[in-house]
Amino acid sequence: MTTTEATAPAGALDDGFHVFDTTLRDGAQREGINLTVADKLAIARHLDDFGVGFIEGGWPGANPRDTEFFARARAEIQFKNAQLVAFGATRRAGGSAAEDPQVRALLESGAPVITLVAKSHDRHVELALRTTLDENLEMVRDTVSYLVSRGRRVFVDCEHFFDGYRADAEYAKSVVRTAHEAGADVVILCDTNGGMLPAQITAVVSTVLADTGARLGIHAQDDTGCAVANTLAAVDAGATHVQCTANGYGERVGNANLFPVVAALEIKYGRKVLPEGALAEMTRISHAIAEVVNLTPSTHQPYVGVSAFAHKAGLHASAIKVDPDLYQHIDPERVGNTMRMLVSDMAGRASIELKGKELGVDLGGDRALIARVVERVKERELAGYTYEAADASFELLLRAESEGRARRYFRVESWRAIVEDRPDGTHANEATVKLRAKGERIVATAEGNGPVNALDRALRVALERFYPQLAKFELIDYKVRILEGKHGTESTTRVLISTTDGTRDWNTVGVAPNVIAASWQALEDAYTYGLLHAGVEPAE
Amino acid sequence: MTTTEATAPAGALDDGFHVFDTTLRDGAQREGINLTVADKLAIARHLDDFGVGFIEGGWPGANPRDTEFFARARAEIQFKNAQLVAFGATRRAGGSAAEDPQVRALLESGAPVITLVAKSHDRHVELALRTTLDENLEMVRDTVSYLVSRGRRVFVDCEHFFDGYRADAEYAKSVVRTAHEAGADVVILCDTNGGMLPAQITAVVSTVLADTGARLGIHAQDDTGCAVANTLAAVDAGATHVQCTANGYGERVGNANLFPVVAALEIKYGRKVLPEGALAEMTRISHAIAEVVNLTPSTHQPYVGVSAFAHKAGLHASAIKVDPDLYQHIDPERVGNTMRMLVSDMAGRASIELKGKELGVDLGGDRALIARVVERVKERELAGYTYEAADASFELLLRAESEGRARRYFRVESWRAIVEDRPDGTHANEATVKLRAKGERIVATAEGNGPVNALDRALRVALERFYPQLAKFELIDYKVRILEGKHGTESTTRVLISTTDGTRDWNTVGVAPNVIAASWQALEDAYTYGLLHAGVEPAE
Repeated sequence: MTTTEATAPAGALDDGFHVFDTTLRDGAQREGINLTVADKLAIARHLDDFGVGFIEGGWPGANPRDTEFFARARAEIQFKNAQLVAFGATRRAGGSAAEDPQVRALLESGAPVITLVAKSHDRHVELALRTTLDENLEMVRDTVSYLVSRGRRVFVDCEHFFDGYRADAEYAKSVVRTAHEAGADVVILCDTNGGMLPAQITAVVSTVLADTGARLGIHAQDDTGCAVANTLAAVDAGATHVQCTANGYGERVGNANLFPVVAALEIKYGRKVLPEGALAEMTRISHAIAEVVNLTPSTHQPYVGVSAFAHKAGLHASAIKVDPDLYQHIDPERVGNTMRMLVSDMAGRASIELKGKELGVDLGGDRALIARVVERVKERELAGYTYEAADASFELLLRAESEGRARRYFRVESWRAIVEDRPDGTHANEATVKLRAKGERIVATAEGNGPVNALDRALRVALERFYPQLAKFELIDYKVRILEGKHGTESTTRVLISTTDGTRDWNTVGVAPNVIAASWQALEDAYTYGLLHAGVEPAE
Repeated sequence: MTTTEATAPAGALDDGFHVFDTTLRDGAQREGINLTVADKLAIARHLDDFGVGFIEGGWPGANPRDTEFFARARAEIQFKNAQLVAFGATRRAGGSAAEDPQVRALLESGAPVITLVAKSHDRHVELALRTTLDENLEMVRDTVSYLVSRGRRVFVDCEHFFDGYRADAEYAKSVVRTAHEAGADVVILCDTNGGMLPAQITAVVSTVLADTGARLGIHAQDDTGCAVANTLAAVDAGATHVQCTANGYGERVGNANLFPVVAALEIKYGRKVLPEGALAEMTRISHAIAEVVNLTPSTHQPYVGVSAFAHKAGLHASAIKVDPDLYQHIDPERVGNTMRMLVSDMAGRASIELKGKELGVDLGGDRALIARVVERVKERELAGYTYEAADASFELLLRAESEGRARRYFRVESWRAIVEDRPDGTHANEATVKLRAKGERIVATAEGNGPVNALDRALRVALERFYPQLAKFELIDYKVRILEGKHGTESTTRVLISTTDGTRDWNTVGVAPNVIAASWQALEDAYTYGLLHAGVEPAE
């Protein structure tokens, strides 16, 4: 059996305040998330980079993937800031912690810190645990003191604490007291069902702190939409340990979101809870974790969403030219985000001008030109285009208007895509494009794993001879949206494509009744924009 | 000029507490929202059905669409609960309210209630409004008293109030006092930049209430992730008017979300703020409004998200069988939502059994069968399928396992889809399917506006003779997700299709490297499920 000392990594902040992340355990309960061990290792690295003090990795023993995670994390990750935490339950009723196989698995995980979940709501003890209130206290005492005697640092999660407190405050507090006296370093009050509001949290945490003397933490779920505020309310009342998940992932509505909690503590409370410079990495880390769990990053997430500092109103846009600080609560760069001006038909000229500047296209205050661009954007948005998420297509539109003609590297005559399902269950995808470039006419055919991929390849086959830069372009994302929700495949289709050249990414849009035709438009824009920014001169 | 008395509709609640919705004005600032007049009318009807007291419709005079909205709303909607509110600014510096064209447009809108936005932050007065602090007060006094003299009820939004209060509390309060003394019924303290936290809101609102005696309202933006809590914090301090938007739509991160605010007031505070029975319509209305604005409803929205009462953890699932109230903060039916068990490889047998029951497939506690289903779900999820959002495909899987073989109404031999872009810019989409049904072999070809639509039509052509029920099925939504974000069109593609028979909707899933092949799978499941639930006997 491993004996591990509960020492903090060199880079860690002092122990006075804990930022405890449970994305890998409680966050993984979110609908739509399904983490592999490799995913968990990748997320642990991001969280450690961000600088949280504790990373709860899972429940070793209960889940083979979690057991493997702890073994690999110990072998493969050199943590700079975080300590790894194993999660598990108190021993079984009527047994002994020293002989409980599940408790043994916690020790064998090698994690220096262990979070034990304990029942603190009388009805849960009786109905879910099926034991007596006294035996539940004994399970807490025995398990905590046994793990402490084996050199582990122990935190105790009091599950359903706030509902339990309402049902029987004395019993709920006796669980806190028992854990504290048995040697638990922090006792965490959990709003497991997420039904609390901030004022209630402040009142209960204050009383429990006064009555038990235990160091307290908070674990809030977001069922009332108040998890961030509830976490801060507990801190206001004296809690010094916050349990959160990246992007608020978690069961039902989710958990308290790590990012706005940490940002509030650092920026609004002026409390240093992350290593120097970490906050400026927050947007990047939030998006990177979303990518690992394979969920689109929430565009409207506080601080880190792409919309979090996006301005649309014409009224605001003109004032922002005077002083951006008047219209944002913090400088977005503090959290690694940026201010954006949105292009939409609600936008006036001021927004178009600012957006041009952002894209490096100087409109030189040309009022007629700007009015023409506004008109053109309105027209296209009416047809289903959106430029808010397709800067590259917007830049092409802007340049076409300001230069009087569209940049063209090739002129397409026609194309065709065929998808065939064969009796043996395999598929054939073939595309042909006919186009002119640099005075030549080219007909190219290619196969792909789907019709858009086949078209993409046929286009490359046709053009790479003229534009070798194309070899570096790669499609990295592809989104399809049906615009009128009531007619399924008979509606207008909008396709957004993200392309990279390995250094920068750009987004383009296509709209057509036909998904393939819409994809083709977005592809054409993607290639044109990429060639333009590679410095290639247009030549049909 | 219209003179309208500020009388409330018959169904309205008493005036002691205001639920004020600004989805149509401030909510429309959200990135991605672009409302037509018809959209605005549809949303106004939903909000009135829900029972809000006030609906802020827009800024007549500043925007021709908003002017049209007020004209049509007066003519076309008989409000049951809500009063229509026009939004506008105080008169221009140096002018007179009676002669201000923008103030005239507010009167001409015919709205019985008018919200005036006023500056209450000294720097904004100087830099954005470019006038003196005294003239700003005069603009408030003049505009409010003029509109009151014309029979309108006036509310005043103090823009940037909390930042202004920090900069110069006395000036900020003098704006509140001036509005109040000039006859404004409610003065709304706006956290326009959204940087506040609940404890600060409570402190400021209490002081302003004590110092001015004005009736106060709150308008919170969600930049710290605390808009709901900030709204409730203001109510705790004595505010009796809350400004919110449906689903929290709004600029940047968004506004305080109407639904969790109202749910907290009704359920947690026990304060009646909606007509009888309205709360149980909340989930439906939230989703209906999302549909009108053409945004996917947030799955993780408190109270109304499809995940808000969804349980995944195996541990919880077994306890939920004992007593669901132990694991949810409210009965989901109070807000028109339902509890759901999620099928995922983290789920144990208890979840599969409960899910079977939910779908009406009795697994009869058959442990071997349940284990086989768990195994099969794991296998398919690994390949990219997701059953959490595709109940119909899951039910087919469940029935195939429990009945020993899949239900089949037809057996496909092969299919083919061709998309052709022609030199004149038009597109041709043609699909052919070859299949067997009821002992016959059928070859059918059809055209469509896209390849999936062409395939769908070819399938109908082939099958309608055997299964006339198909005529009622309609595809209502189609979603495409690329599973590995790093390879664009070369990755695995997941398609989710929603189908309706006019009475019920169902969701199916298909996964393949090829978007057309994945769509085909989801189509096949959709037809099979639809025929099964239409009571048709399987017959290849």
